[in-house]
Amino acid sequence: MSEKIYIGVDLGGTAIKVGICNEEGQLLHTYEGPTETEKGADTIVNNIERYVRLVVEQSPFSWDQVAGVGAGVAGFTNVREGIIILAPNVGLRDFHIREILEQRLGKPIKIDNDANVAALGEAWGGAGKGVDNCVCYTLGTGVGGGIIIDGKIYQGFSGMAGELGHMSVVPDLEAIGCGCGQMGCLETVSSATGIIRMAKDAVARGDRTSLAQVENIMAKDVFDAAKAGDEAAIRIVNRAAFYLGKSLAAVAVVLNPELFIIGGGVSKAGDILFNEIRSVFAKLTPEPVQRGVRIVPATLGNDAGMVGAAGLFLRS
Amino acid sequence: MSEKIYIGVDLGGTAIKVGICNEEGQLLHTYEGPTETEKGADTIVNNIERYVRLVVEQSPFSWDQVAGVGAGVAGFTNVREGIIILAPNVGLRDFHIREILEQRLGKPIKIDNDANVAALGEAWGGAGKGVDNCVCYTLGTGVGGGIIIDGKIYQGFSGMAGELGHMSVVPDLEAIGCGCGQMGCLETVSSATGIIRMAKDAVARGDRTSLAQVENIMAKDVFDAAKAGDEAAIRIVNRAAFYLGKSLAAVAVVLNPELFIIGGGVSKAGDILFNEIRSVFAKLTPEPVQRGVRIVPATLGNDAGMVGAAGLFLRS
Repeated sequence: MSEKIYIGVDLGGTAIKVGICNEEGQLLHTYEGPTETEKGADTIVNNIERYVRLVVEQSPFSWDQVAGVGAGVAGFTNVREGIIILAPNVGLRDFHIREILEQRLGKPIKIDNDANVAALGEAWGGAGKGVDNCVCYTLGTGVGGGIIIDGKIYQGFSGMAGELGHMSVVPDLEAIGCGCGQMGCLETVSSATGIIRMAKDAVARGDRTSLAQVENIMAKDVFDAAKAGDEAAIRIVNRAAFYLGKSLAAVAVVLNPELFIIGGGVSKAGDILFNEIRSVFAKLTPEPVQRGVRIVPATLGNDAGMVGAAGLFLRS
Repeated sequence: MSEKIYIGVDLGGTAIKVGICNEEGQLLHTYEGPTETEKGADTIVNNIERYVRLVVEQSPFSWDQVAGVGAGVAGFTNVREGIIILAPNVGLRDFHIREILEQRLGKPIKIDNDANVAALGEAWGGAGKGVDNCVCYTLGTGVGGGIIIDGKIYQGFSGMAGELGHMSVVPDLEAIGCGCGQMGCLETVSSATGIIRMAKDAVARGDRTSLAQVENIMAKDVFDAAKAGDEAAIRIVNRAAFYLGKSLAAVAVVLNPELFIIGGGVSKAGDILFNEIRSVFAKLTPEPVQRGVRIVPATLGNDAGMVGAAGLFLRS
């Protein structure tokens, strides 16, 4: 039992998920508890420490086998300094989490943002297993991205590589403002938020759609309606997929990755979304650049964050 | 005099340029002679060998100091196998150039395509000196690109990374076909060819422009007219610059490079082009992603190919 293990922490606004990975990126044991954001930074740190110790105690492994603890945080992070710059949903700002956790746990700590660790998780232990170069999209409230080069997260000049949700893809005349301050970002049309907005717009302007009967429209309602043949819903799904495909085509001529992995809640729509993404990608990408390139759904679901956070030690 | 030197060969359809670089990417001696494409593959190889030996003989260095010979080829190359897949302007196809030159010269040989070696040349010994991560555009007959990561050319899955000229950036309704088979590629508007086409279109449809008096319009004529205040020419330059800026913005959210280097004949237009590119880039890129990022002209001009080809040994 001298095998090394790595702990991954997925620090979200509601829950802290903690998992043990082996060196192959397999998730072996997990523990989940509330973040208790409302109680402030001290409680959050106490909770992280407690859950990390608990998951090891509940496993057949010993504390000595823990080679490192990685954390993925929903927000802006300074990877080099180990600082959470701003995590609005967790309520932390300019928080030196690496230093604090190193003191508490006596283990090496690494951090990164949630989109990057989810990408690394999928690349290391999920849909990208065995692939060195891939690009991941996470379609949730926003659109996150992660660039994996030679098996590692690529950070870029100032840690902003992989901000795929903020590629300007919607033509000016159809563009709306994005939270980032730009117009026409991918996130405005291909996130759950964007899909819900387009659905509400369709209902508000009186489009003939079954979505008019839904009280609080969620992205899943739009996909269900599209699968049932609702034309307004199909148009919305196709629009979300079109701009995703267009952004994949742009990424492909830059990086020529072997694999695109698409995860997050919206990706659960399945074929109705993926078929359209693949078709648009095929249309907008030169043949030699798209040859052999695959576009696949993520496989780890909500576990990607834990796996990727653990992977920060072996793959960063 | 035991210092190692590296020879860079720029193999074009008209001329073969050969240069000696030191380990710092400084170009010390050069020789240029005709390719003699019309005489076939044997003559081309003889010429390469002759020019390489000549440039060393004419320098203070000895043949023993030559640590390697790199070649940049205008065309599709298989870098791993050292094969020219297709170089239409040089008249070579499925040509095992590495093997042949290794036998002739008794030195290690490396090859890559011209856009990649030009990018590496600028990154190593030109505008990118000291910068590890940069993206280069070469605006000539087409639009070439090269991605430099950790100081090296990034090839991607099948060697197609950096095909920046084939990013689909022009909206459907304004798009025209590209040589690659797609519609709306950057190359259709921002290459010399694209600029000349737009100028000829303007003259043909009777736009009021001084370009109507030019017999055989070149890209430089369009820039000169724009600088002199010709409104039609200004519109054309702004259109070429707009789509360049848009593609830079897309690259920035993917890779977050520190530096964009723009070279090739079209880049000689100077401020009239660069100011517009910078302004569009600033408008289409989220603030945290563009912070500190520079957009600069290439500095090596036609020497970039030789320098980058020599650099294949130290930086690939």
